[in-house]
Amino acid sequence: MRVLGVDPGLTRCGVGVLDSRPGRRAELVDVLVVRTPVDAPLAERLLALSVELEAAVERYRPDAVAVERVFSRHDVSTVMGTAQASGVALLAAARAGVPVGMHTPSEVKAAVTGSGRAGKEQVTTMVTRILGLAERPRPADAADALALALCHLWRGGAPVPAAAAGGPTAAQRAWAAAEAAARRPTRQGAALPPGVGPAL
Amino acid sequence: MRVLGVDPGLTRCGVGVLDSRPGRRAELVDVLVVRTPVDAPLAERLLALSVELEAAVERYRPDAVAVERVFSRHDVSTVMGTAQASGVALLAAARAGVPVGMHTPSEVKAAVTGSGRAGKEQVTTMVTRILGLAERPRPADAADALALALCHLWRGGAPVPAAAAGGPTAAQRAWAAAEAAARRPTRQGAALPPGVGPAL
Repeated sequence: MRVLGVDPGLTRCGVGVLDSRPGRRAELVDVLVVRTPVDAPLAERLLALSVELEAAVERYRPDAVAVERVFSRHDVSTVMGTAQASGVALLAAARAGVPVGMHTPSEVKAAVTGSGRAGKEQVTTMVTRILGLAERPRPADAADALALALCHLWRGGAPVPAAAAGGPTAAQRAWAAAEAAARRPTRQGAALPPGVGPAL
Repeated sequence: MRVLGVDPGLTRCGVGVLDSRPGRRAELVDVLVVRTPVDAPLAERLLALSVELEAAVERYRPDAVAVERVFSRHDVSTVMGTAQASGVALLAAARAGVPVGMHTPSEVKAAVTGSGRAGKEQVTTMVTRILGLAERPRPADAADALALALCHLWRGGAPVPAAAAGGPTAAQRAWAAAEAAARRPTRQGAALPPGVGPAL
């Protein structure tokens, strides 16, 4: 199972791709940070982010996209941009017919460190350890995107109830795939294999 | 000059299209409300909204798209969805290479009623009067979308400084158009004619 995690942001958007097979440690496929210029108009920043995220979904063909659930208690100065960036990420997944999972920052921290109140350094340390990486992923957005993907694998990887997780039902997935197919050539969304979890 | 106004929302998203010619009253082209089911997964709601807004931009080929600028002091329970919906609207415009203008709720109210603190009924009354409509547009989201389009016309209609308004520069517009053209057949974004204002 392949998960593409997105730590949404306009200035820096972390993207982390992991593969997981039963009995094996989760494996890093790629990690990158999409940046858009702070002084560019908002619509252009969203477009640039959309183009990059759709390209990543197209390139890595994940079985699921995991996106951080944004709350209004985030930093007020950036929360609107973060919410819009997360919307763009969800849209990129839905357009490609890929199921979506959403996880709160606390859930992600708890998944990789055991504590929902862990700091950024601790998250990076654990991501590095769990994936057996030679170097710590930088910046923090990159590590956070990998932590999101790990969290999604860890929490079962199986389809989460759609209403709770924002993941589509089979019918909605088919509809999304049909919509996407009508717009441009793309593969059909792969169904999530049930019960595939991470090996750690 | 044609402006497509968007009052962003996930449950109800108002879309109002106006034409304006020098010396003439602004004219209603169409007004509609896009709805997405409250119980559908977020990614599917954003996809449905995206499909509808891109279709509206394609159908009406506006010279500009005006979107409400969302603040974090909005109703906390809906602000994330509203921010994401506004991101989808901005993205639909950018994908089609159409310039974007963003206006705050106070600016919109002040434009059509003379007071930035006017109530919804007052905004609807003035939109009805200014456009010479036989009926009051309902629901309020529809009237708000028309008020946004009027506000955009009223404030000059000419290109607003990109950094302030979120409208693209000529170079960014060209880039957006190229991006859009590379993805699917679409017209090139029309440039905003300078100095075209509303006649009221």
